[in-house]
Amino acid sequence: MPQNDVPLSEFDAATAVHRAEGGGLVTVLDPGWDVGGGILNGGYLLSVVARAAVLESPHAHPVALSASYLRAPAAGPAALTVVPGPAGRTLAHSHVTLADAGGPALSVNVTTATLGDDESVWSEPMPEVPPVEECFSVAEHRELAPPGVQVPGLSLRVDTRLDIATAGWAFGQPSGEPVLRAWMRFSDGREPDPLALVTFADALPPTSFSLGNLGWAPTVQLQVLVRALPAPGWCLVEATSSEIAGGWVDEDYRIWDSTGRLVAQSRQLARAPR
Amino acid sequence: MPQNDVPLSEFDAATAVHRAEGGGLVTVLDPGWDVGGGILNGGYLLSVVARAAVLESPHAHPVALSASYLRAPAAGPAALTVVPGPAGRTLAHSHVTLADAGGPALSVNVTTATLGDDESVWSEPMPEVPPVEECFSVAEHRELAPPGVQVPGLSLRVDTRLDIATAGWAFGQPSGEPVLRAWMRFSDGREPDPLALVTFADALPPTSFSLGNLGWAPTVQLQVLVRALPAPGWCLVEATSSEIAGGWVDEDYRIWDSTGRLVAQSRQLARAPR
Repeated sequence: MPQNDVPLSEFDAATAVHRAEGGGLVTVLDPGWDVGGGILNGGYLLSVVARAAVLESPHAHPVALSASYLRAPAAGPAALTVVPGPAGRTLAHSHVTLADAGGPALSVNVTTATLGDDESVWSEPMPEVPPVEECFSVAEHRELAPPGVQVPGLSLRVDTRLDIATAGWAFGQPSGEPVLRAWMRFSDGREPDPLALVTFADALPPTSFSLGNLGWAPTVQLQVLVRALPAPGWCLVEATSSEIAGGWVDEDYRIWDSTGRLVAQSRQLARAPR
Repeated sequence: MPQNDVPLSEFDAATAVHRAEGGGLVTVLDPGWDVGGGILNGGYLLSVVARAAVLESPHAHPVALSASYLRAPAAGPAALTVVPGPAGRTLAHSHVTLADAGGPALSVNVTTATLGDDESVWSEPMPEVPPVEECFSVAEHRELAPPGVQVPGLSLRVDTRLDIATAGWAFGQPSGEPVLRAWMRFSDGREPDPLALVTFADALPPTSFSLGNLGWAPTVQLQVLVRALPAPGWCLVEATSSEIAGGWVDEDYRIWDSTGRLVAQSRQLARAPR
């Protein structure tokens, strides 16, 4: 537990889960983690769910989460219902529902485990990317944002430095390839951990920005895998899409830590912006 | 409905779901879709779940399924409980539980929709692979199987022709790279559809075979996305792993149809064989 004189990081405060009288888990969803228009980021919501799952698990870390996004919950009070599944020495299963006053918003299958310091038998290498100081901060360049590109609360709290090669859309010159790459860390310096990786795994702008389509791409289903404990420092986050058709788009994230180890993966199905 | 004189395909028979008296959905899990040792294939089980979800949905196709594999169910009777979520013109959500006499085995978030003939805005191209007749059928080469490699029921029902470049493990010469690629279709000639793709998305041998590790890799969580209606003929299925560490492995599938269009993706977290 943090000492009284050490304030919680923005992330820890915004994802805090408490046990209410009666034993149920509750949270207060923070309006500051939006992606524009009052819509809360899907990764942020999933981090709240992961925290609830870990609270009810014998294991310390979320290693796999698969969520259906049923509806966008409002900022404010929300309840978390954790139904435990089989639990063993290696891993534990649960199903978590996040609901606000309007009803269930997320239905999530969660697997928890305890990650250690195991070395990789196989690890996909990190792509070549310019150093952080040569990358592009959307939050610091609001004046360059084209009409329709909002600077959401999320990008004030998650410091996102885009590889210029994938940031052309911010200058009206989309690359034409659905790929985004960025260095990422919390703006207040909180170091990454498995809960943070769950947010990072949905924190880039939509890949369709790179095709010149600057609309919002609402998540339908999102799976996040946490593969290792991340080292302190910047993470490299890459998102790509494999198929865009019929109003659907996939986004496939890989996240490497500051030592170059692959520490998380995610894949989502989203509605493609018009 | 099939006419009386047209027998169901093996796949349609093995994944059939019926409404029991009282209204619940039931199935009989077929022992012929095993991966060895009486363990039923995870993709096969997910196709049964997808069929149940579609039965209770206004939409025709499973487009996203995210499953936690709680325990391995036995062949024989099983019940499917579908809890409908929000449903609209574009998509519908549900949560499906598959349970046998031993209790819940799969917990699955399902999204259904109705796929059309939309052209791709973006589609990842199919990799170069030798033609089917130059590829390697494990089922036809049992005599080459090294000790410990079983020819499971699954590979008798799903005709799997491995790209020789990724089949070295069958000859005692593993490639050392966790990549498998194969042409795939049902052995009885049934054409692919979204339900079939759900099985194909977990039907290759474990990628760790390519590292010379011929043990079973039990699925912990599996997400399958169906991106388009597949054309008739062989599908190309590719599985890769990005990180193997601490007893965990990911498997990432991409499936192209006979026209070269990406029609499905999956990602699973599994326990790595010792």
